Amino acid sequence: MTRIAFEEVHACLAKVLRSLAFSDERAQLSARLFAETTCDGVYSHGVNRFARFVAMVRNGSVDPAAEPRAVARFCALERWDGQRGPGNLNAFAAMARAIALSREHGIGSVAMANTNHWMRGGTYGWQAADAGVIGLCWTNTMPNLPPWGGSEPAIGNNPLVIAVPRAKGHVVLDMAMSQFSYGALESHRRRGEQLPIDGGFDAEGNLTRDPAAIENSQRLLPIGFWKGSGLAVMLDLIATTTALGTATNQIANDPLRETGLSQVFIAIDPRTLGESARMDQIADEIVSSLHLTKPAESDKPVRYPGESTLRLREENRKLGLPIDEGVWTEICKM
Amino acid sequence: MTRIAFEEVHACLAKVLRSLAFSDERAQLSARLFAETTCDGVYSHGVNRFARFVAMVRNGSVDPAAEPRAVARFCALERWDGQRGPGNLNAFAAMARAIALSREHGIGSVAMANTNHWMRGGTYGWQAADAGVIGLCWTNTMPNLPPWGGSEPAIGNNPLVIAVPRAKGHVVLDMAMSQFSYGALESHRRRGEQLPIDGGFDAEGNLTRDPAAIENSQRLLPIGFWKGSGLAVMLDLIATTTALGTATNQIANDPLRETGLSQVFIAIDPRTLGESARMDQIADEIVSSLHLTKPAESDKPVRYPGESTLRLREENRKLGLPIDEGVWTEICKM
Repeated sequence: MTRIAFEEVHACLAKVLRSLAFSDERAQLSARLFAETTCDGVYSHGVNRFARFVAMVRNGSVDPAAEPRAVARFCALERWDGQRGPGNLNAFAAMARAIALSREHGIGSVAMANTNHWMRGGTYGWQAADAGVIGLCWTNTMPNLPPWGGSEPAIGNNPLVIAVPRAKGHVVLDMAMSQFSYGALESHRRRGEQLPIDGGFDAEGNLTRDPAAIENSQRLLPIGFWKGSGLAVMLDLIATTTALGTATNQIANDPLRETGLSQVFIAIDPRTLGESARMDQIADEIVSSLHLTKPAESDKPVRYPGESTLRLREENRKLGLPIDEGVWTEICKM
Repeated sequence: MTRIAFEEVHACLAKVLRSLAFSDERAQLSARLFAETTCDGVYSHGVNRFARFVAMVRNGSVDPAAEPRAVARFCALERWDGQRGPGNLNAFAAMARAIALSREHGIGSVAMANTNHWMRGGTYGWQAADAGVIGLCWTNTMPNLPPWGGSEPAIGNNPLVIAVPRAKGHVVLDMAMSQFSYGALESHRRRGEQLPIDGGFDAEGNLTRDPAAIENSQRLLPIGFWKGSGLAVMLDLIATTTALGTATNQIANDPLRETGLSQVFIAIDPRTLGESARMDQIADEIVSSLHLTKPAESDKPVRYPGESTLRLREENRKLGLPIDEGVWTEICKM
């Protein structure tokens, strides 16, 4: 592991993207979103994910020049076509539009079909909160999770992001509907570790903490068993029916061909209703009540969603982004 | 257990409510929502819950005459004060308004403070879907769940409801953020049964399926461990900051005094964007893909959220609502 300054990472990624026919402006933004993801400590979806993203541009799954466009509009609700453009740029544009709609109408939403993997979903939550509005967004994915009662992957882990702005630090949740990702299973297996809790079923249908057994069965566990399975179905339904997009069961079950995703972006601007100072006070009170909760382990206070992000962001900005040397060498050679 | 015709149950509950100073119209509606909940098979929150509701009217927690009112409006977003009126009537009115806003603006939302327990959350999901729109709503609750990393109840199980309309049967999810409710723990304990999966921690902090151990520790498990805990926090934050309402940590931890709740109702009308026939087709395809998934147990096909409701509704309409004889006797004497 090495430490590379944020600016150097940003410039390097942008250079690679320009070489792939991204306009300078779009290369800068996409590179920034990748670098910020690593800076915020979401290592799985930042710089470590860049090579796969480049591969998807090269294999034609992602069209670097395609820009999302509205295909239908009705007041505070819009239906967009992502035109298979870069997923992070598409999602950033869609959330920006939802934010603008919320300023105009109190609440606004963009449902986007035909887009690509948005990388870190939390990016668009932070984007909304930085703009002072509440953000909710989600995406469908390729089938990577069995529905409750099923023995084969047929629903997506459909990450859901919710963000609430707060002057002393936004509260941002970014969670997939599987208890663990395949990436988490792999890293536990490589370290020779069991999962801390059951993460899926083995080939015999027994709950297990053995990551390899779950990788083999492909029977990952939805959060809350039947509940997370149901929630994943609902998120897919809303996104695909509103955007007229592709549903999980029609998306290629191949990480390098996972394209044509459907997403929803909702922004709520409660400041349009006045009394925004009171809102911040209420959010602070909720955060305080969490911090005052008696912890299960005395040295580990309860945290709010996103609490560790600001600390990691500051640390990584100061020390440089922690990047695997092999990953960095590969990117530098692109 | 006895079977009582829907109309008889409805008339009887309405009569009791009129005796508690509900207007005839409001008594009819509230009684209908209770009866429909039992008819739909959600026995915990229908007729079985009526006596507790009446007790809360009698102890002053619920004001039978109070009607919710908008205190701030901005285009598609409204802030309401529930004025501690009956929770189901308040929620029904708020969802009706969100539906109307969605027809006018594509999407609409009502955030309501100062309301009461809405009984079955799914009611307002079915309400939205019956109106042909997508519904999302949630409520906060008294502190009945420890946040992840905490050892005492400090967050709510904050039920979340999502509904998508479909001509062949709406898809409706109604789920709390705890893996099991206290009601479920109690009924397992009374039957002398263990829970089918871990439902919380015992006094020593070990995961357990023993319902009594969890009732004693009060350490119920959030769905997906840290994930459901985070989601419960976000739902509380959105509801209370938008409605300027009371947060979970300020709500009395007493089922008979659990009042002043905060709720959010969002409706999306994608038909405003056209192509509604295609929407129904997409929803049908998703449902079909679930039904075609290879089941874990060959005789138990995968179901979609809400699938069993229509069957139970039909059965209970035909045979009469299944009601515990003691419960029915008590209501008839009110």
